[in-house]
Amino acid sequence: MTLPHSVRIREVGPRDGIQSESAPVSTEDKIRLIDALSETGLRYIEAVSFVSPKAIPNMADARQVWDGIKRNPEVFYSALVPNRKGAELAAEAGLDGMQVFIAATDSYNLSNVGKTVRDSMSDVEEVVATGAQAGIPVEGTISTAFGDPYEGDVDAARVVDVARRMVGCGITTISYGDTTGMATPRRVRDLIDSLRRNLPDLELNMHFHDTRGTGLANVLTALELGVDYFDASVGGMGGSPYARGATGNVATEDLVHMLEDMDVSTGVNLESLLEAARVAQGFIAGELPSKVLKAGPRWRLSKAAG
Amino acid sequence: MTLPHSVRIREVGPRDGIQSESAPVSTEDKIRLIDALSETGLRYIEAVSFVSPKAIPNMADARQVWDGIKRNPEVFYSALVPNRKGAELAAEAGLDGMQVFIAATDSYNLSNVGKTVRDSMSDVEEVVATGAQAGIPVEGTISTAFGDPYEGDVDAARVVDVARRMVGCGITTISYGDTTGMATPRRVRDLIDSLRRNLPDLELNMHFHDTRGTGLANVLTALELGVDYFDASVGGMGGSPYARGATGNVATEDLVHMLEDMDVSTGVNLESLLEAARVAQGFIAGELPSKVLKAGPRWRLSKAAG
Repeated sequence: MTLPHSVRIREVGPRDGIQSESAPVSTEDKIRLIDALSETGLRYIEAVSFVSPKAIPNMADARQVWDGIKRNPEVFYSALVPNRKGAELAAEAGLDGMQVFIAATDSYNLSNVGKTVRDSMSDVEEVVATGAQAGIPVEGTISTAFGDPYEGDVDAARVVDVARRMVGCGITTISYGDTTGMATPRRVRDLIDSLRRNLPDLELNMHFHDTRGTGLANVLTALELGVDYFDASVGGMGGSPYARGATGNVATEDLVHMLEDMDVSTGVNLESLLEAARVAQGFIAGELPSKVLKAGPRWRLSKAAG
Repeated sequence: MTLPHSVRIREVGPRDGIQSESAPVSTEDKIRLIDALSETGLRYIEAVSFVSPKAIPNMADARQVWDGIKRNPEVFYSALVPNRKGAELAAEAGLDGMQVFIAATDSYNLSNVGKTVRDSMSDVEEVVATGAQAGIPVEGTISTAFGDPYEGDVDAARVVDVARRMVGCGITTISYGDTTGMATPRRVRDLIDSLRRNLPDLELNMHFHDTRGTGLANVLTALELGVDYFDASVGGMGGSPYARGATGNVATEDLVHMLEDMDVSTGVNLESLLEAARVAQGFIAGELPSKVLKAGPRWRLSKAAG
């Protein structure tokens, strides 16, 4: 079994995690979290989103957060944007990259942005054009790639179809979001195989949740298929305001902890990452779901018990 | 990738889970839980242990629990026993099977039963002899097979050595306990490969914890290597009173949920199993760590959101 020697991890906690919080998070806390993450060795951070402040009040201060952080020149900071307006704000602010999103299903896309998938595709086009004009690379996200909270299972063929249309808009890297936590190793394999068969040049990122315990098993499956680009969220923050019960991205520290022990290099210092998770825990209500944050790294146990 | 078509799951919640509870659990609650589990399709249940009531007060009523349950003739009920005395009690009670345990490490074995691994081996011999006399099959467990809370990492070679000595005592099936939750897919692969190379006739059972999020990733790895016998605990109950921070066996419902979606048959009805988990949640303090108990099966989400 040959696994990739190294992977890229995109930290989405500051955006995906905080966006899911119903309680307000202060601008200062967001800045502290991003600054802490910027010192962990993580090279990709989804820092903010430029979305409707009415829909997601916790992202209304995206520009202030971005202006307030200490930018580490070794980190690529991206923003999630739903449309041209968001892309223009991200370009104006000078983000390193943009992430444009669409759902695999009309039901979810309608509840998320009030449009069908087909109608959203023109937004994707406009974001790509705005990015091109500003010289900022744009990647895509397809949410509900393994299941929709209203429609249930989502066939790989449907996801491939949406991916193909995104590629037609000029996107070359797409992240597949297990928004509802319905992915299992078999479905991960099915989707990756279908994507590779139909869109061999497309670069893949997998965005898993640990809603039903399969988060790292899904990562392992993707890794065995050669995928080397993953999203994760510090402390396991996150979920989706529109997918009930869909809590918990794969925790970045659980991911790093497993991968490093498998000799898959992440470039991340786990102790610094745990520090950043403690920063997040300081302002998030309730216990973060991360396991390694609670139990400590596997090598710490021996000292704790001694 | 060829996976086994079906697996055997041994439910250890009534023993491993309740044993880890510091608060007392009533005899009636234990009986209700085992009775609920007996109706789920599970074919192997570790029902009780015959251990020192001083060390584990929650197992002092093992005989009353065993006498009180409705035995399902399709279920194989076993008891954990540390020594001849325990084996005699299990034989007298008429259990279907016995599970004798030993640690891979002296540190843990000393804190668990007050003896070195070498000294415990005579207990294994006596349990096997008692089982043979009573016509009751005996399987073995090696705990701390992936790490020791005092010593840290445990080499596969050390586990193989203890397994070889157990085989010398007449044991033909051994369960490997990730007591401290330190296993990762690489270490699972290393141990299974070492065992297969050195003891090719020995049957393997894997007993994983989800302490650091790798529970189901470890199961997946073992499954890919052809292992088809797993321990799990309803609700994810469990841990070890002697391994700090080592909470949470792999939850039986999380395991069944993943495997059935991968077309690996477990014979277990997930809805009935969730009922049994709710019985456990009724008398266990704190929220059980099971994910599927909280989020529901993947097919339920669509209804919940609709």
